[in-house]
Amino acid sequence: MISTQMMELTGKNSAIRAMFEEGNRLAAIYGRDNVYDFSLGNPNFPAPDSVRDTAVRLLTEKDPVSLHGYMPNAGFPAVRRTVADSLNRRFGTKFTDNNILMTVGAAGGLNVILRTLLNPGDEVMVFAPYFVEYGNYVANYGGVIKVLPPDMDTFLPNVDEMERLIGPKTKAVIINNPNNPTGVVYGEDVIRRLASVLERKQAEFGVSIYLISDEPYRELVYDGASVPWLTTVYRNTIVGYSWSKSLSLPGERIGYLCIPSEIDDAELIWNAACIANRILGFVNAPSLFQLIAAECVDDKLDVALYDANRKALYSALTGMGFNCVLPQGAFYLWMKTPEADTSFVNAAKAERILVVPGSSFACPGYIRIAYCVSPMTIQRSIPAFIRLAKQYHLNAAKFRV
Amino acid sequence: MISTQMMELTGKNSAIRAMFEEGNRLAAIYGRDNVYDFSLGNPNFPAPDSVRDTAVRLLTEKDPVSLHGYMPNAGFPAVRRTVADSLNRRFGTKFTDNNILMTVGAAGGLNVILRTLLNPGDEVMVFAPYFVEYGNYVANYGGVIKVLPPDMDTFLPNVDEMERLIGPKTKAVIINNPNNPTGVVYGEDVIRRLASVLERKQAEFGVSIYLISDEPYRELVYDGASVPWLTTVYRNTIVGYSWSKSLSLPGERIGYLCIPSEIDDAELIWNAACIANRILGFVNAPSLFQLIAAECVDDKLDVALYDANRKALYSALTGMGFNCVLPQGAFYLWMKTPEADTSFVNAAKAERILVVPGSSFACPGYIRIAYCVSPMTIQRSIPAFIRLAKQYHLNAAKFRV
Repeated sequence: MISTQMMELTGKNSAIRAMFEEGNRLAAIYGRDNVYDFSLGNPNFPAPDSVRDTAVRLLTEKDPVSLHGYMPNAGFPAVRRTVADSLNRRFGTKFTDNNILMTVGAAGGLNVILRTLLNPGDEVMVFAPYFVEYGNYVANYGGVIKVLPPDMDTFLPNVDEMERLIGPKTKAVIINNPNNPTGVVYGEDVIRRLASVLERKQAEFGVSIYLISDEPYRELVYDGASVPWLTTVYRNTIVGYSWSKSLSLPGERIGYLCIPSEIDDAELIWNAACIANRILGFVNAPSLFQLIAAECVDDKLDVALYDANRKALYSALTGMGFNCVLPQGAFYLWMKTPEADTSFVNAAKAERILVVPGSSFACPGYIRIAYCVSPMTIQRSIPAFIRLAKQYHLNAAKFRV
Repeated sequence: MISTQMMELTGKNSAIRAMFEEGNRLAAIYGRDNVYDFSLGNPNFPAPDSVRDTAVRLLTEKDPVSLHGYMPNAGFPAVRRTVADSLNRRFGTKFTDNNILMTVGAAGGLNVILRTLLNPGDEVMVFAPYFVEYGNYVANYGGVIKVLPPDMDTFLPNVDEMERLIGPKTKAVIINNPNNPTGVVYGEDVIRRLASVLERKQAEFGVSIYLISDEPYRELVYDGASVPWLTTVYRNTIVGYSWSKSLSLPGERIGYLCIPSEIDDAELIWNAACIANRILGFVNAPSLFQLIAAECVDDKLDVALYDANRKALYSALTGMGFNCVLPQGAFYLWMKTPEADTSFVNAAKAERILVVPGSSFACPGYIRIAYCVSPMTIQRSIPAFIRLAKQYHLNAAKFRV
């Protein structure tokens, strides 16, 4: 009786969310400390103090009518200017408030831009492994997701496959950089190759192909890695951002879309995206957190916290004989499984280790371990990982707790 | 090149929003005090102090990780229980946390439930005059809006027309009570007639027809009017709510859907709605304001403030000879125009009075005056209204400023 699409989704609810709820169930039985929940990208480090201080100051000093009131659907103009200025300082761009559309997180932003661009039947390409929600976002508006097979050596975008499979119905390509679930950072080289194929294909088919870069993990990079800013590499780029990770505010739903004036149909897309923000029911990004994000625009969490987790977990797991991709960004560790990933996930769950199978990212044979947990969780999980390793005859003996 | 639907919308952007932006333009020229902006339902009375006090307390006392973190997509269970308990106290219902889905305002909630219910081609009925966004929300998911003609005597739902036009493809009926734009409250009688037709038609066609009651103005009623609670009148009712008006928080985007366990396919709808909340990119209602709404669940603005505005404007305008519906709820005055509403709106704009034409609500010949403004705005606007009345030879002489 309900939407057929939604009916299908109720049958295969998000493995990530299911694991998150499983974690809550196990925590109720065994105690939170005895469950090693690496399932969800829910930052365990608190927002910087500046967030609280700014919030309290705004609440006590500002007129509540404007603080909590409606503003243009794109967001407070002053907030958008502040965000634009910050990008301009960092990337040498020339954005104004009319290039920044404040959104209900990155997920809200992606829905807004897909609603804006897609006609039913339009295709959107993604590179496996990929954040599965992209498929749902595309399907919301009758679009068709085309999943490109992973490059199992590098987990970089498989540009050759993209070139082979791209067609006249391809309206957009979504990338996620740094990548969820692999932690890989797409560098300048691969982005330039990707851009050059897109440009060639645009010319060949006489269409615009938009590159949508989903960048909630932009600030979370390690070992001096840097995330290229794409609007200056490929003209038809639209960037989505969220403060969920950089300021540890995932529940507050605050982010933006950057829609450069140089993209094809820029003004039309800007106007339509503002309307899409309204008619999808977001109306506007939450007002108080728009102002907080602007005041804290150059703040971020201390990346060293995540880096310590990354190193501890990577060296422990590789020490046990597991095969992992060394993450350069985000807060995910991508680990090869010694048997089918879905079985391995169950074996891990028996040790109260909660992780998400690679199958959920269209890349079986791996798991995603979200290490945005407290250092204590990592430390306490090691014996459980060792027991798991032993089941698979990996070299656990090498590793000392 | 963009979505065809969105392309059409960029051509006919919301008259309400356009007028709001016109108001900002005129304010920049003439000064805010010299523009009488009655265009948008943006409350001009501040949120109760309890909102600020609760916010500051939560920010200073609560762990930021849980305060700003992810929670189940339906919202914090404790918040949902508090909302359910509040409804139970007021309406004698037996809701639990599993009947309350926290949403990004009422607009977010309506999108969630429409995404959940609609297959392309399904019909949703509304009664003119109606909040035009309903049509956009329905179109987002390929649904078809069926607008029932207004009852020009009472502006109550035209139940006879509904009975005549309802068909096997009717999936839902949306009502808005108290009503935007008329300020009319739908009482028990008309709701019972409506429910009995829906029940008969469900049986006749062998389908479920959901009544979606959009109730952001529930608390704003005057002269002792009361808004019937519908889930106990018609079994297949789903209620949408927002704290935008009752707590003056429209920019914060906080509301809920109440999905009773008694509706057809209740569990399926609940599960699908939680997923829809996630995949539409809301993910969850903003976390801090979920907690604030729960702590302030029985607080509301002093309705007397709006009531004073209502009386001042109604008596002034009727005194000038204008023909108005006496509003019993919400903060809108519905006024008959002495010429075509779109022309009248332009004449009003020349006097720097900004209002929205009835045409924008599928009911020409009227305007909507949003009196959620400061009392000063009403007072200062009276001479402008008098000049306007004079143009139409209405009896302005009767009225003394």
